Amino acid sequence: MSTGFFGDIKPVTYEGPNSVNPLAYRHYKADEVVLGKTMEEHLRFAVAYWHTFAWPGGDPFGGQTFDRPWFGDSMDDARVKADVAFDLFSLLGVPYFCFHDADVRPEGKTFAESAQRLDVIAEYFEGKMKETGVKLLWGTANLFSNRRYMAGAATNPDPDVFAYAAATVKHCIDVTKQLGGENYVLWGGREGYETLLNTDMKRERQQAGRFLSMTVDYAKKIGFKGTILIEPKPQEPTKHQYDYDVATVYGFLKDFGLENEVKVNIEQGHAILAGHSFEHELALASALGIFGSIDMNRNDYQSGWDTDQFPNNVPEMTLAYYEVLRAGGFTTGGTNFDAKLRRQSLDPEDLLIGHIGGMDACARGLKAAARMIEDKALSGPLEARYAGWQSAEAKAILDGKRTLEEVAARVTAENIEPQPKSGKQEYLENVVNRYV
Amino acid sequence: MSTGFFGDIKPVTYEGPNSVNPLAYRHYKADEVVLGKTMEEHLRFAVAYWHTFAWPGGDPFGGQTFDRPWFGDSMDDARVKADVAFDLFSLLGVPYFCFHDADVRPEGKTFAESAQRLDVIAEYFEGKMKETGVKLLWGTANLFSNRRYMAGAATNPDPDVFAYAAATVKHCIDVTKQLGGENYVLWGGREGYETLLNTDMKRERQQAGRFLSMTVDYAKKIGFKGTILIEPKPQEPTKHQYDYDVATVYGFLKDFGLENEVKVNIEQGHAILAGHSFEHELALASALGIFGSIDMNRNDYQSGWDTDQFPNNVPEMTLAYYEVLRAGGFTTGGTNFDAKLRRQSLDPEDLLIGHIGGMDACARGLKAAARMIEDKALSGPLEARYAGWQSAEAKAILDGKRTLEEVAARVTAENIEPQPKSGKQEYLENVVNRYV
Amino acid sequence: MSTGFFGDIKPVTYEGPNSVNPLAYRHYKADEVVLGKTMEEHLRFAVAYWHTFAWPGGDPFGGQTFDRPWFGDSMDDARVKADVAFDLFSLLGVPYFCFHDADVRPEGKTFAESAQRLDVIAEYFEGKMKETGVKLLWGTANLFSNRRYMAGAATNPDPDVFAYAAATVKHCIDVTKQLGGENYVLWGGREGYETLLNTDMKRERQQAGRFLSMTVDYAKKIGFKGTILIEPKPQEPTKHQYDYDVATVYGFLKDFGLENEVKVNIEQGHAILAGHSFEHELALASALGIFGSIDMNRNDYQSGWDTDQFPNNVPEMTLAYYEVLRAGGFTTGGTNFDAKLRRQSLDPEDLLIGHIGGMDACARGLKAAARMIEDKALSGPLEARYAGWQSAEAKAILDGKRTLEEVAARVTAENIEPQPKSGKQEYLENVVNRYV
Amino acid sequence: MSTGFFGDIKPVTYEGPNSVNPLAYRHYKADEVVLGKTMEEHLRFAVAYWHTFAWPGGDPFGGQTFDRPWFGDSMDDARVKADVAFDLFSLLGVPYFCFHDADVRPEGKTFAESAQRLDVIAEYFEGKMKETGVKLLWGTANLFSNRRYMAGAATNPDPDVFAYAAATVKHCIDVTKQLGGENYVLWGGREGYETLLNTDMKRERQQAGRFLSMTVDYAKKIGFKGTILIEPKPQEPTKHQYDYDVATVYGFLKDFGLENEVKVNIEQGHAILAGHSFEHELALASALGIFGSIDMNRNDYQSGWDTDQFPNNVPEMTLAYYEVLRAGGFTTGGTNFDAKLRRQSLDPEDLLIGHIGGMDACARGLKAAARMIEDKALSGPLEARYAGWQSAEAKAILDGKRTLEEVAARVTAENIEPQPKSGKQEYLENVVNRYV
Repeated sequence: MSTGFFGDIKPVTYEGPNSVNPLAYRHYKADEVVLGKTMEEHLRFAVAYWHTFAWPGGDPFGGQTFDRPWFGDSMDDARVKADVAFDLFSLLGVPYFCFHDADVRPEGKTFAESAQRLDVIAEYFEGKMKETGVKLLWGTANLFSNRRYMAGAATNPDPDVFAYAAATVKHCIDVTKQLGGENYVLWGGREGYETLLNTDMKRERQQAGRFLSMTVDYAKKIGFKGTILIEPKPQEPTKHQYDYDVATVYGFLKDFGLENEVKVNIEQGHAILAGHSFEHELALASALGIFGSIDMNRNDYQSGWDTDQFPNNVPEMTLAYYEVLRAGGFTTGGTNFDAKLRRQSLDPEDLLIGHIGGMDACARGLKAAARMIEDKALSGPLEARYAGWQSAEAKAILDGKRTLEEVAARVTAENIEPQPKSGKQEYLENVVNRYV
Repeated sequence: MSTGFFGDIKPVTYEGPNSVNPLAYRHYKADEVVLGKTMEEHLRFAVAYWHTFAWPGGDPFGGQTFDRPWFGDSMDDARVKADVAFDLFSLLGVPYFCFHDADVRPEGKTFAESAQRLDVIAEYFEGKMKETGVKLLWGTANLFSNRRYMAGAATNPDPDVFAYAAATVKHCIDVTKQLGGENYVLWGGREGYETLLNTDMKRERQQAGRFLSMTVDYAKKIGFKGTILIEPKPQEPTKHQYDYDVATVYGFLKDFGLENEVKVNIEQGHAILAGHSFEHELALASALGIFGSIDMNRNDYQSGWDTDQFPNNVPEMTLAYYEVLRAGGFTTGGTNFDAKLRRQSLDPEDLLIGHIGGMDACARGLKAAARMIEDKALSGPLEARYAGWQSAEAKAILDGKRTLEEVAARVTAENIEPQPKSGKQEYLENVVNRYV
Repeated sequence: MSTGFFGDIKPVTYEGPNSVNPLAYRHYKADEVVLGKTMEEHLRFAVAYWHTFAWPGGDPFGGQTFDRPWFGDSMDDARVKADVAFDLFSLLGVPYFCFHDADVRPEGKTFAESAQRLDVIAEYFEGKMKETGVKLLWGTANLFSNRRYMAGAATNPDPDVFAYAAATVKHCIDVTKQLGGENYVLWGGREGYETLLNTDMKRERQQAGRFLSMTVDYAKKIGFKGTILIEPKPQEPTKHQYDYDVATVYGFLKDFGLENEVKVNIEQGHAILAGHSFEHELALASALGIFGSIDMNRNDYQSGWDTDQFPNNVPEMTLAYYEVLRAGGFTTGGTNFDAKLRRQSLDPEDLLIGHIGGMDACARGLKAAARMIEDKALSGPLEARYAGWQSAEAKAILDGKRTLEEVAARVTAENIEPQPKSGKQEYLENVVNRYV
Repeated sequence: MSTGFFGDIKPVTYEGPNSVNPLAYRHYKADEVVLGKTMEEHLRFAVAYWHTFAWPGGDPFGGQTFDRPWFGDSMDDARVKADVAFDLFSLLGVPYFCFHDADVRPEGKTFAESAQRLDVIAEYFEGKMKETGVKLLWGTANLFSNRRYMAGAATNPDPDVFAYAAATVKHCIDVTKQLGGENYVLWGGREGYETLLNTDMKRERQQAGRFLSMTVDYAKKIGFKGTILIEPKPQEPTKHQYDYDVATVYGFLKDFGLENEVKVNIEQGHAILAGHSFEHELALASALGIFGSIDMNRNDYQSGWDTDQFPNNVPEMTLAYYEVLRAGGFTTGGTNFDAKLRRQSLDPEDLLIGHIGGMDACARGLKAAARMIEDKALSGPLEARYAGWQSAEAKAILDGKRTLEEVAARVTAENIEPQPKSGKQEYLENVVNRYV
C-alpha cells in the first residue's frame, strides 16, 4: 500500500537506549505506562502537515531545496501528498496529525472552488484515517499566506477580507468536525500590524474579538466537541501580533468574555520569541485555566525568527512536560511537532529521523518529569517554601478578611522584621539534573 | 536660599532654537500654547528623585563615581539632598517631582523608625513645595532594594514580607496624599521570579491581586484623589516580572476586577525591553482605557538591560506624544524623567544639561505631534483606510448582528474576492518626516 | 521612451522643505554644494535592482504580493524589467544602480546558458546606461539563492560548488568591468554554517580565504579598477555567517594578507543584527583602513531578522554620515539603498516614494553632519578630551619608548592618582540635537 | 584548621550517580581516567575568588543580601576571607583558584599601599597553597571597579590612568608569577566606550595595542612561564567593549603582531552576549590557534546581561568540552567557574552546592564528549562530508595552484552542475543525544 517514497524502511519500533539504529526509538515506547497512562496517551504526538509535506525548503534568501514528487498544483499531487503523509504517520506510529486547509489542497480560483477541493481531500483523508487509525488532533485555516490577507484576516481594514476569513474558518471547522478533530486552532499570523502609522489598533481588536465570538458560537451550534485554541506569537510575519503571548491572549479573552470557551496552543518557539521560557508559558496558562495543547519544537535562542527546529534539549523539555503534568496532562490537546527539517536535510529518511529524535527526546522529558513528580522532587520544597501562608492570619489576608491598615497596624504592633531564607536555586537545579 | 551646589547657574530660560547656550531651552517654552494648552500643562514634567539625587553612579562592575555632598546615612544628609533637589527643580522650572520613600530618607532600624523619618522629610518637603510651588506628580514605595524583598514583596513566600510591604505602601500613600500627590505608583521590581523551580506562580499571582485590591480600597477610604498606577516591566532585576507589559497588566486587572481602578505608568525603556515600541504600549493602554502616565527615557536598543538614558531621538518621541495626544493628553499623569546621567557625567551642571536636553526633545516631539493632529496628517489616511467598515453590513457584523454562517453564505452568494490595497507605509513615514 | 509603468509621473525635482508633494524632494538637491562637493558627489546614490525589481513581496509566511508585468522567466521579461528599472533611475535622478546576476536574467539550464543570458542583458544595460547616463556602482553574484549553494559557495563541502561559484564570480567581475562598475561586492549569504555538528570551520575558512585571494588576483589581472568589497552580516540565512561584522572581516583579511586589497560594504541592518550601531561599524572600518561603501537601510531594532526598510531616522543617519565624512567621504563607494518596500506597498508610486523618503533623509543627515564638522561641534571637545596624550611622556609610551616597568616606576615615584573628568555625554547628545 | 564557616561539612566525595546527597559528587571522580588522562587533569577546575567570596549579592536594583563574616575593609577581613576560601577549595577538592587584586585585599589610599597589601596577602596565600596543595590557575588585575577607570584603563583619554593601570598590571603579574600562576588574564571591562560622541576609537585601539605589547614584553622579561590571556566580552559594563568576541580579538592580535603571544579565555556567558554559541567561540579560537582557557558558567539566553549562573545544561556543555578536546584539551588553561550564586542563595552550603552541581555537569559533559571522540560519532561523518576536497584537483585549488579563470574554464569544459547532498543535521543531533 506504501507509496514507496520512504523506500524499504520498516515501521519504526522501540529498540531501547542502547540501539544505534537511527530509525528506531530509543526512549519512546508507546505502550509503556508512566504515572498511570501509556506514553502514547500522555504525549499524544501529532505530525504537522505543513512543515513535513508542504514546505519546499525555502528561506528569505533561497528557494526550494526539497525535491518531492507531490510538489505541484493539481489535485492528483494533493492525493500523492496525502498518501505519503499517511505512510509517514504509519511508519512512525504517531496517533495524530494536524493541517491547514492550504496544506492539503491547491487553492481554487474562487472561494467555492477552494472549499470544494478541501471537501474532496477531506473525504480522501477519511478513507486514509479509517485505514490507518490515525486521527486528527486539530484542523486550522491558513489566513496568512494568500496576498488577500497581507493586512490581516479578522483585523483587516477591508470588511470583505473579514468575511472571506469568516467563510474560510466556518468551512475549516466543518471539515475538522467531519474528520473527528479534537481541537480547532486559530493562529493569527497576520492579525497584527506592520506600522502603527496606518493602524487603528482599538478597532482591529474589536474586529478580532467579534470574529472569535462568532467562531465560538458557530462551533457550539454545530456541536463541535473539540476545544477552540488560540496560538500566541509575538511577531513574525508582522511587526507586532495581537496574540503576543499567553498573558496577552488571556486579557483579550477576558475582555470578550471568552476565557472559559477558548484555550491556548503554546509553541516553544513562539514563547522564546516573546522573551519567555516555554515552561513559563505553560505554567502561566495552567495558572489562568487556559492550557490546551502544545506545538513542540526548538527555537534557536540566538536567531530572532521562528526556526522551528526539531526539539532535542532534554533538560529543557523535561521542565516543559513537568508543567504539562502539573496542569493535569493533556485532555483534548497533544504534542504537535511544529518543526521542520533544516533545508539541507534532503533525504526522505531525514523526515523520519527528525521526528524520531523529537519523539525520543519528548519521551525522555516526560519520563524524567514523571519521576520528579513521583518523588515530589520539586513540589516538596515548594510546599515548604510557602508554608507560612498556611497560618490563619495569612489566609485571612488572602481571603480578603484584612484591610491594608489592619495589616499595617500589625507590622508596627508586632515589630515585624522579616528574615530572608535561601531560595536554594542551585540546589533545585542540581535536583533536576538528577533526573535528566 | 540656594545650596550653591550648582554654583552661580541662573534659572534656565527659553532662548529659542538658535541658542548655543547649553543651559538654556531651545524648544521648551513653558507658556507657549499648543493645541489649546500651554506646553507646561501638556507635558507636566517631573524630575525623578532616585536617579538624580540618590544614585551613586554604580553599575554591576563598578561602584560610586558621583561625589555628592549629601551622600551619607543621616537625616541631615537627607535634608541637604532635599535642598539641592528643590534647587534643581527651581532652576529647571519643572512643575513636579516623584520619589520613593527610600530615596528621601535613610532606612531606620525598624519599620517605625523608617516611617517616622519619612514623616520628618515629608514635612520638610511640604515647606519646600510651598516655597517653590513645585508639586508632587507621584509617590511610591521602594519594595525591592532591601534584602527583605529579595524574593518579592506582595508575592513573597513569606507572609511577613507581604505584611511589611503592605504597611510600607499604606504609609507611602498617606504621605503622598499629605503632599498632594496626583498619582501613586506601584512598580513591582521583585514581583516575579528568578526560577520557576522554587515558584508557585498561581499563588503569587493571587497574592499580588489581593495586595493591589487592598491598596485600592485603602486609597479610596482615605479619600486619595489621585490615580493608582502600575508600572509594567518585563524583567530585571528578576528573570521574569509579573507586570510584564501593558497587555499583561490589563489581563491581571481584569482578573481582579480592577480595570477601572488602576491605570498604567508606561516607561519607554521598559517597553523596549518587553519587545515593544513605546508608542505601541501607549496606543494599547489607550485602547484598553488604562493609560495613565509616562516615564520618559531612552533605552539603548542593543543593551539588554534598563539603560535609563535621557531621551533625545525626536522622531521617536514625536510618535510617543502623538499617542499621548490621541489618548486625550495627560489628566493626573505627566512626563517623569526616569532617566539617569551616564556614570561618567560627573559635573553638577550635567544634571541640568541632561534634563534640559530631555525637556527640549519632549517639546519638539509634542509640537510635531500637535501639528500632525491639526493637519490630520495621519488620521485622515487612517479614516480612509477603514472606510469600508462604515457600511451597514460591516457594522452589523461588528455589532453582533451576523453569525459566522451568515457571513460565510454571503461570501459564496456574492462571490467575494477581496482586492488588496497599498498600505502606504513609506508614504506615511515620509509624512511624519515632514514634521520632525 | 518610458514604459508607462509609473503612469504620467514626471521626474522628481527638488521643491524645498515646505513642499507637501510626495513625489518631490524636500531636502535632496543634487547640485547643492556641501563641504566643497555637490550632494550628488557626496551621496552617490544607487538603487538596488533586487529589492526594487526582483523581489515579489514574499515573507516566510506568505507569497507574492506585488503584481509586476515583468515577473516571469523569459528574457523578454528581463528586458521589460530593465526598461522599468531605467525609468525609475531616471525619474529619481539617481546616478547609480547595483545588481546581482540573478536579478537581471533568468537562470539558464546550464552555467553556460546563464552566463550567455547575462551577457545579453549586460549589452542591453550598456545601451540603457549610455541613453540615461546612469552608472553602475557595483555588481555582484548571487551565490545563495539556488539550491546548489544551500551549504555554502566558497565554503561548500563539495569542491564542485566552489568551482561553480568561482566561475560565476569570474563572469560577474567581467560583466562589472564591462559596464564600468566602480566596485565589486561579495556578500557571503551562505558562507557560514547551520550547525557546527557537520562543519569543519577551520577548513571552510581556508576555502574562503583562497576564494577571495583568487578573486583579487583575477580582478587585478584583468585591470579591474574598482574596489573589491566584502559585505559583513552576522547571520540569516545561516545560523552563523563567517563575515560576521567589520572586526571579523578585518581579522580574516589580515590572516590572508588581503587587508590592503579588499574593503567593506557596510549595511545598517547588518550592523544592527550584529549588535552594533551603524556608526560603530563605519568608525571601525575607517580606523582599520577598510571603509568602502554603504548599504543604507533601516532595520527594526526589535525584529531579529533583516527588515531592509527604507531609512528615515535622521538623527541616526546624521551620525552615520558624520563617520563617512570623517573617513574622508566615499571614493569608489556610495549610498546603495539596500531597502525594500513593505510587502503591502503595492502601488508603482510606492517604489518612488520609498526612495524619495530615503534620499531626503540621507540629504538631511549629510547636511547636519557637514555642519557639525564645519563647527567642530564634536571634534573640538574630542581633541580636548585626549589632550593629555600630547605630552612628551605620553607620546613616548605610545611610540614604544617606555617599558611596563618604567611606567610603573613613575606611578610610584610621582604618586600618580588620576582624577576622573566628566565624559559630558548628555552635553554632546544635546549638541548633536542642535543639528538634527 | 577549618574556619567553621561551613559548619561540620565534610570534604565532598564521589558517591556515584545514584546518590541523592546534595553534598556529594555524582559524576566527578577526580582520578577517573578518560581518554588517557584523569578527570582532574582534563577539567582543571578553578574557583573564582570574586563571585564566591567578594560579591555581596547586589544587583542594579538591590544591595547586599549575603551575610559574610569577612565583609569589611580591613586586612584581617581579607585574611578571614582567605581562610574560608581555602576551606572551600579543600572541601571541594578543586586544584585551582583565580583572583583579581581587588578581590583579595582592601584598596589602599595610594597605589603603593594597595600594592603592599597585595604583597601581604600573596604571602598569606603562599602559606595556604603550600598547606592545601591548591594552585593558582590565573591572576588578574581589576581595572574596572574603581572610579578612576570609569572611562577605561589602557584606553583612557587620560595617560595617567594608562600609567596607573600599567603599574597595576605589572604588580599583578609579579604576584601571579610569585604564586606560580599558570596564566595571566586581561579582561577589559572598561576598554570600550559609552558613546562614540566622545570617543576616538582609532586612538584608543592604539593605546590598547601598546598596553598589551608592553605587558607581553614584561612577562617575557621576568620569565613568567604562563600564558597571557585576553577575555572577550561584547558589552556590559560599557556600551561597546573592544574585545568583543574571539574573532575581534584575533584581528586585534594580528594587527599588533601578538597572535603567537596571547591566547583567549572564553566565557560561556560572554559568547552568548556576543550572539555566539559557546562551542562556536571555542571552535573558532582553536581554528585560529589562540585557544587558551575557559570561564564556565551559564547565561540566561533571555536576559541581556551577564547572569553568570552555575552551568547545568549537560547537552550544551558536552558540545563545549567536545571542542576543548578537539583543540587538544587544556595546556595551561582550565575550567574556571566564573559563576555566582543567585542572590537569594544565602546559605554557606549553597556555595558548595553551586560548585558541586557545576562540576558534576562538567564531568558529564566531558565524559560524553570523550565517548563521542572515541566513537568518531561526529568526526567520521565530518570527514565523509568533505571527502571531495581530497581529490588532486581540489587540493590544487586550495594550495594556490589554480587561478580563478582556470577553475572557471573547467566548469564550462566539464559542464559542472553540483548536486546537493543532505546535511543530516537532525541525524547528527540525534547522535549527540545518544551520548548526553
